[in-house]
Amino acid sequence: MAEKVVAGIDIGGTNTKYGLVNEQGKILSRGTIRTAEYQQPEEFAKTLAAIISSEAEKISDVILCGYGIGSPNGNYFTGTIEFAPNLPWKGVVPLAKHFADACNLPVALTNDAKAAAMGEMIFGGAKNINHFFFITLGTGLGSGIVSDGKIVYGHDGFAGEMGHIIVKEDSDRLCGCGRYGCLEQYASASGIRISYLKFLAGKARRAPVDPEQIDSAFIFQQAKQGDQEAMRAFDYTGEILGLALANAVTLFSPQVIFLFGGLAQAGELIFEPTRRSLEKNLLKIFKGKTKILPSSLNEGDAAILGAASLIWHDLKKVAQ
Amino acid sequence: MAEKVVAGIDIGGTNTKYGLVNEQGKILSRGTIRTAEYQQPEEFAKTLAAIISSEAEKISDVILCGYGIGSPNGNYFTGTIEFAPNLPWKGVVPLAKHFADACNLPVALTNDAKAAAMGEMIFGGAKNINHFFFITLGTGLGSGIVSDGKIVYGHDGFAGEMGHIIVKEDSDRLCGCGRYGCLEQYASASGIRISYLKFLAGKARRAPVDPEQIDSAFIFQQAKQGDQEAMRAFDYTGEILGLALANAVTLFSPQVIFLFGGLAQAGELIFEPTRRSLEKNLLKIFKGKTKILPSSLNEGDAAILGAASLIWHDLKKVAQ
Repeated sequence: MAEKVVAGIDIGGTNTKYGLVNEQGKILSRGTIRTAEYQQPEEFAKTLAAIISSEAEKISDVILCGYGIGSPNGNYFTGTIEFAPNLPWKGVVPLAKHFADACNLPVALTNDAKAAAMGEMIFGGAKNINHFFFITLGTGLGSGIVSDGKIVYGHDGFAGEMGHIIVKEDSDRLCGCGRYGCLEQYASASGIRISYLKFLAGKARRAPVDPEQIDSAFIFQQAKQGDQEAMRAFDYTGEILGLALANAVTLFSPQVIFLFGGLAQAGELIFEPTRRSLEKNLLKIFKGKTKILPSSLNEGDAAILGAASLIWHDLKKVAQ
Repeated sequence: MAEKVVAGIDIGGTNTKYGLVNEQGKILSRGTIRTAEYQQPEEFAKTLAAIISSEAEKISDVILCGYGIGSPNGNYFTGTIEFAPNLPWKGVVPLAKHFADACNLPVALTNDAKAAAMGEMIFGGAKNINHFFFITLGTGLGSGIVSDGKIVYGHDGFAGEMGHIIVKEDSDRLCGCGRYGCLEQYASASGIRISYLKFLAGKARRAPVDPEQIDSAFIFQQAKQGDQEAMRAFDYTGEILGLALANAVTLFSPQVIFLFGGLAQAGELIFEPTRRSLEKNLLKIFKGKTKILPSSLNEGDAAILGAASLIWHDLKKVAQ
């Protein structure tokens, strides 16, 4: 019998990555196309579906069963991408429908962080965990919340936006969402950069390199070498993240919080202060119960696996 | 055929109220016993089960099908009451088991705010609403969160404690939980009292009566008469509650937030600033979507109906 595979598609502003993924989470084939070249989403869907379908035909004895798509601002309920600032398509784009029209197979679409959370549940460290947070500390802070074995979507599909919890009332950090003081302005690669530059300025120390060249990887290197302001930036980031997580734990009581993304690569520099702040700020009944762990998904594969897991999950539900 | 009824039991520090409730949410019989008189929880359960069973026998043609219990610090998963400071029973008390031993019928137990949320869902204004918050603004702030038609319990049964979200980092308000700055120290009958006294002190105005006599009902009366500090106390309470709710909406995206309890009786004085602050602080995609409404449960019946709805809900699940 032919092996079933699904397509996992990770849409980004510049490039879209895709892979053919089997039920065990192995990526049998993968590729990239340039998102920005397609001004029309219909054309994008048609072209990509044709590419993927022909790739599947090249692999002997597999049958393509569906498309899972992770996208910024993707909505699982409607299959639409809504007002994504970094994509070439404006307004509300029914991308799941465009794919379904092009391929005549099941299509599931959600936002990228929720897809990655699903990936952690189906293929990663959350296989037997029914209550967890998946948090991507990238340029921004993306999150997928799983409660009772299911992604929390809310009534409209937009729930779980932990990055947009307001954590500082009188913050001077303007978020891309138009408000001030969102968690992602502190706990993200961009957030730690602002904190580091502020700590340097407070010490009247000049940045060791051109500020334009400072990113979270640079701060990580500095901190490893014992730079006080860089270490303080990690501590401060962890403190704010830990408090926000403590509040979220009070609402969801998860078993595990998975951290993923560039900033999570800093290891104990970010995990230790985050854990410390979480425990310090937790209500007594929650203390010592929620682990903070690195995601077990490989940085390069997570988005494709997450998108693929979305449709694997749906296919299994149908089969039950 | 005999009509099915269930017992709804609302355990309080001083009194325990109970009622026999039919499937339509009508209370056919009710009564009260003094919690404080029973030092042993087994004896409490045995006595109350006997009373309720004999009350059911007095009503012609009904059959008692189960016991639903709402209690401070009640845990649905374990059927235990854990470290409830205001009850006579210390430590972890397996009260659901004591009732089951005494009556040989299905027993469900949860905390009082979650029971009330279930009551709103089964008998009240949330009948067709799958995503909502139920918030009791009493002496403290109790909450039950419903996501996708189910109470959010988390992995250990303790999720949904919105009253213990830390909303002020450098707060001087010590919460009963031992931490500072919890939402319930602001948005509750006790919280508004502290705010009002602070505003009076700031104006170097003496309290119009002995501060001991000031409670939320008094502040309500003062505000209705145009007292500036009383009105400001309601505004301030609503502002803080609205911001905390905006953050929680970002995580759960509910359709409705039901407010219940003494402070909610103040009507627009509390609803208007809460709504204003919620809308102001919401992420754009959530604006205008979540209603804040008064609970449709009657203040005197809510706890009994909530507890009864818990077991009605379980009985229906079994029947399906």
